[in-house]
Amino acid sequence: MSSTVSPLPPGSVIGMLGGGQLGRMTALAAARLGYRTHVLCPDPDSPCAQVTDRSTLSSYTDHAALDAFAAQVDVVTYEFENIPYETVLHLAARVPVRPGPDGLAVCQDRVAEKDFANRHGIGTAPWRAVGSAEELAAAAAIGTPSVLKTRREGYDGKGQAVIRDPADAAAAWEKLGRRPAILEGFVDFARELSVIAARGVDGSVVCYPAVENRHRDHILSETIAPAPNLAPERAQEAEEIARTLITALDMVGLLAVELFEARDGSLLVNELAPRPHNSGHWTQDACACDQFEQLVRAVCGLPLGSTGRHSDAVMQNLIGDDVLRWPEFLAEPGARLHLYGKGAPRLGRKMGHVNRLVPKG
Amino acid sequence: MSSTVSPLPPGSVIGMLGGGQLGRMTALAAARLGYRTHVLCPDPDSPCAQVTDRSTLSSYTDHAALDAFAAQVDVVTYEFENIPYETVLHLAARVPVRPGPDGLAVCQDRVAEKDFANRHGIGTAPWRAVGSAEELAAAAAIGTPSVLKTRREGYDGKGQAVIRDPADAAAAWEKLGRRPAILEGFVDFARELSVIAARGVDGSVVCYPAVENRHRDHILSETIAPAPNLAPERAQEAEEIARTLITALDMVGLLAVELFEARDGSLLVNELAPRPHNSGHWTQDACACDQFEQLVRAVCGLPLGSTGRHSDAVMQNLIGDDVLRWPEFLAEPGARLHLYGKGAPRLGRKMGHVNRLVPKG
Repeated sequence: MSSTVSPLPPGSVIGMLGGGQLGRMTALAAARLGYRTHVLCPDPDSPCAQVTDRSTLSSYTDHAALDAFAAQVDVVTYEFENIPYETVLHLAARVPVRPGPDGLAVCQDRVAEKDFANRHGIGTAPWRAVGSAEELAAAAAIGTPSVLKTRREGYDGKGQAVIRDPADAAAAWEKLGRRPAILEGFVDFARELSVIAARGVDGSVVCYPAVENRHRDHILSETIAPAPNLAPERAQEAEEIARTLITALDMVGLLAVELFEARDGSLLVNELAPRPHNSGHWTQDACACDQFEQLVRAVCGLPLGSTGRHSDAVMQNLIGDDVLRWPEFLAEPGARLHLYGKGAPRLGRKMGHVNRLVPKG
Repeated sequence: MSSTVSPLPPGSVIGMLGGGQLGRMTALAAARLGYRTHVLCPDPDSPCAQVTDRSTLSSYTDHAALDAFAAQVDVVTYEFENIPYETVLHLAARVPVRPGPDGLAVCQDRVAEKDFANRHGIGTAPWRAVGSAEELAAAAAIGTPSVLKTRREGYDGKGQAVIRDPADAAAAWEKLGRRPAILEGFVDFARELSVIAARGVDGSVVCYPAVENRHRDHILSETIAPAPNLAPERAQEAEEIARTLITALDMVGLLAVELFEARDGSLLVNELAPRPHNSGHWTQDACACDQFEQLVRAVCGLPLGSTGRHSDAVMQNLIGDDVLRWPEFLAEPGARLHLYGKGAPRLGRKMGHVNRLVPKG
């Protein structure tokens, strides 16, 4: 990475792989700064495509469509990490892709992710790579309870099986479809935290403060920003972890780091996401420069923005039928409603969120 | 207007007449709340069309295009007041248009505007309607200096001629193309203020605080929000004027009221605009609910939002080449850059703006 890369001026076109709400909110932030977004995704009427006049309806593996897309954009980014690696490699040969393929490859594989963190001196739950029923049996030394997760894909609790008793192992292996997996040992954690870091083309890094995330049915339900009662040195440590990882991964863009705060106070990396993250939505209404603008700045080679905030905030996710309460949120003074333009509110589907500001603590 | 009108739920489509930056920023606010925007305008690649997947490229007088547009939207609004009145009437027979045609007709005609204000007990500069050179000569009693303005259209100082000496009158009449005009007497004003009011389908009204506007070459250059050193009773009076007018005009949507603060402290109405207004852009970054969201709420029959602000603000317009300074604004901590997606920075063209927050005074 060189600091002499010219920034892409306003009017440039950001290619977005993936059409979900993260792409949508990035496109809205890009528009505010005068940039255009061209989304490529396989879903007609995707949340992102609704907010831009430029879209390509295509699978991620149609090389002709990818080539045409690459020719029409100035830089490519993505809004979820399960874009096929081959797709990103194909595009990266034609147009800058930020974050680049190398960091993405690490984030796509739970084993690579944890191994990478450990090699950089950052703790994780104890883990073993598991490629067969025999390897799973051999990994039993990790103890129970443990969680078997597919190495790739899976989110919001999908692609996971809890092993409470060694006798459950075979069933867990079958449940996950005998796919390459990771077995993670139990962590007696007090809460989940996360930190979002942004890194520019010049290697500069900024971090939003660590936040606390609360889940319901394995789906993020609420983010409290910043994390309440977090010791300053722990908050600093969380930011340092994110800074270390995004730099070591040589990423230009965003890296969201999910952490467990163990009962003994130690911080363990749970997951990495090379994109905007649900736990960063609070920044939209509490910060001068939110995570989406920060991503736009990073991938366009602009100076990163301040991560300072004028208020603290609580973000409430609207999952499934929660969204039907929109009249209530609109009538609540100061509540900031964000809806994603999705159709029917299916069970477990993220439909929107509400940010509520709190005077800075 | 009835308070029993059902609100349009998120996912509904707002039809936008006009494709400029005001439509663009309304579409962005609509998207945040999960609404869609379908823009109709005669310009390809308009600022508004860039941020929505639904647009109709058409003149405002193509009835077939208007009919197709009406069939694809749930409500219609507009982002400038010089949409032909006939167009709005045609659409209003097919789909709700908010604000409705009657209020628009008043705002399209400087004579009707001032007459309406005066009939509601609100002061203006002295004025005379002028339909001929003879009428202009007869109106000379208003004194000099005076300003001759076309009754319709004209903005940012266009369609105006200053008469410093009675002998200039004939030249002014020719300069304006012998069009129906209004002659406005001199007001010894200290500054220009403006107030933006929003009115819901239930008749409820909210107002943003009065702001001070500074001009350069007849174009708004800077808005200071709220207006500094404005006596509380004067601020209250300014809001009451806006409240009186939007209610008397029976408008659902926004009404921006430009006011002169005379040296004797009195407030005189200068112009009305039935749409978002450049002097309200500061609300985007200082208020929980900005003027664009307020418009979306009003036209969709939602409850109006709070006009409360977490900060004071100064808005700087980027006119013409000012926009070339974008790298400087992006590097300024806390400055919020808004660009409109326009092409070349022509002289006098509004290209974007910068909001800077100031701790609440």
